[in-house]
Amino acid sequence: MTDIRYDVLGIGNAIVDVIAPTQDDFLVTHQLNKGAMMLIDENRAETLYAAMGPAQIISGGCAANTASGVASLGGRASFIGKVRNDTLGKLFAQNIHAFKVSFTTEAAVSGPATARSMIMVTPDGERTMNTYLGACLGLAPEDVDEATVAASAYVYLEGYLWDPPLAKEAFRKAAKIAHAAGRKVALTLSDAFCVDRYRDEFMELLRSRTVDVLFANEHELKSLFVTEDFDTAVAAIRDTGALGVVTRGAQGAMTVTRDETVSVRAFPIERLVDTTGAGDLFASGFLYGLARGATGTDCLRLGALAAAEVITHLGARPERSLRELAQQERLID
Amino acid sequence: MTDIRYDVLGIGNAIVDVIAPTQDDFLVTHQLNKGAMMLIDENRAETLYAAMGPAQIISGGCAANTASGVASLGGRASFIGKVRNDTLGKLFAQNIHAFKVSFTTEAAVSGPATARSMIMVTPDGERTMNTYLGACLGLAPEDVDEATVAASAYVYLEGYLWDPPLAKEAFRKAAKIAHAAGRKVALTLSDAFCVDRYRDEFMELLRSRTVDVLFANEHELKSLFVTEDFDTAVAAIRDTGALGVVTRGAQGAMTVTRDETVSVRAFPIERLVDTTGAGDLFASGFLYGLARGATGTDCLRLGALAAAEVITHLGARPERSLRELAQQERLID
Repeated sequence: MTDIRYDVLGIGNAIVDVIAPTQDDFLVTHQLNKGAMMLIDENRAETLYAAMGPAQIISGGCAANTASGVASLGGRASFIGKVRNDTLGKLFAQNIHAFKVSFTTEAAVSGPATARSMIMVTPDGERTMNTYLGACLGLAPEDVDEATVAASAYVYLEGYLWDPPLAKEAFRKAAKIAHAAGRKVALTLSDAFCVDRYRDEFMELLRSRTVDVLFANEHELKSLFVTEDFDTAVAAIRDTGALGVVTRGAQGAMTVTRDETVSVRAFPIERLVDTTGAGDLFASGFLYGLARGATGTDCLRLGALAAAEVITHLGARPERSLRELAQQERLID
Repeated sequence: MTDIRYDVLGIGNAIVDVIAPTQDDFLVTHQLNKGAMMLIDENRAETLYAAMGPAQIISGGCAANTASGVASLGGRASFIGKVRNDTLGKLFAQNIHAFKVSFTTEAAVSGPATARSMIMVTPDGERTMNTYLGACLGLAPEDVDEATVAASAYVYLEGYLWDPPLAKEAFRKAAKIAHAAGRKVALTLSDAFCVDRYRDEFMELLRSRTVDVLFANEHELKSLFVTEDFDTAVAAIRDTGALGVVTRGAQGAMTVTRDETVSVRAFPIERLVDTTGAGDLFASGFLYGLARGATGTDCLRLGALAAAEVITHLGARPERSLRELAQQERLID
């Protein structure tokens, strides 16, 4: 059996966030669905770019954020995703390498530009995302390196991978290799609208046990099981037999298994600036804990701590050492 | 006489900051002079980019930051500076336009890329800058629009303009137009090493009354008058007859004129993250107050408030509305 080289391997869309504080009326004027992620084309991207607030460029992408968070905690992380060899693609690579995440997927040398998500952050900290997928559309099964997958304790996949046409095949390939090697597969539902687009396929992933750990926030979980009632949704995830990890914003987070429910409170913060990456970084802490054999409660606490850091500043990548923060809280040695 | 259309016109290097939290030992390894700005070539830029911490891209440049801050306070601001028509140049333009700063300098369509400064931010919040001037080298007197200068209450120029060969001519042209139109000229000394490079020329600007308002921090002021003693430096600026505005970090700020010295304390903050832009934003608040006829004390307070906002996050551009913050503090209506 292969040795474990990575605590977490993330596979996802390699996206650079173009992020700007914005007033709520901007969302109304431009018919943006607050809190959601919308896919846009290049023309729409140009229009929004010219109209939005003062933008900064910070690397993003769900699974890439999660991998960066794992590395910031001192874990061994790897990432697979597709950029183009342009200015933004170089930024993406520089950033994830600087986190000491292994990232070796070949950049496209032609075709669409590196993906960007225009993210409007309203004064309440909520983010509204408009994503041009660009080079991500080129992610294909051959980008999934078998040895890397087999050497990763957890393979973490994002629901957004269902958007580019070939990426779901990459997803299935990775899951198959992982299970054959005795590893675990985790999926984040990404967002409630993404769930709406691919509900049947996501349900099938659970039923077929392709997914061992499911990350979802309250809205996504309710969307998956088509219910307005949170308790009903929790009962439904319990029935699947997967480990459900449910985040509830300021209300904290919980794990749901057949046998038990464990809850923790949100980690206190000084000021909420930007919720972008909250779920991704929660997954970083949780998976790092899981891979290192922490208790369920400590996994949740590590998740809450990592999420708390990322929502106190713009952008979805940690700006402080999560390892140092976790050590201060005596969550790791 | 021309009507005033702008409270402040900034003229400076149009720079995009590539900014990253970094540990102190990185500065030692790469022989970087902590707290200073060094000019670097493309090769050195590549080396540092690959080696530095996870980078974000945020628009910067002293005078451009100041203009953005003036606009964030609700003032009318304009900026003159040179970018190239590349990804970073577009980001620079998007950002400053989104602040509602007038920026119409034509982007270069060939030649060196948009300037970037690689900024390492150590855990104490200090920033160390490594600047590749690129397209800024193309700034020339013809980029200075006479009508804009004549219509600006304050023309604000950065000492760093002495680095590109033609920019100082642009500087002198702007100062001449400003004075002919009855406007005031302000200069920031930019940094102590910049003062060291151009001390004689900066002294001549004061002696010839080309500069009416001088912004400097403690180090720059001591460097200008070649003294280790702060009081000696203060006495020396007092003798020049210019309005001296001296920032002293956590110790607050003061104005120095022939007749008096006025001091204010620094504005309290929750957590120092990154001092990049502290001086630039101080100038925003001070100049906005001056242009709107505020008292000397209120000008200093507005400066302190704007500086306090910008040092609580990465990057040198305000992320919250400075106008709202100033209203909360009852500094403006």
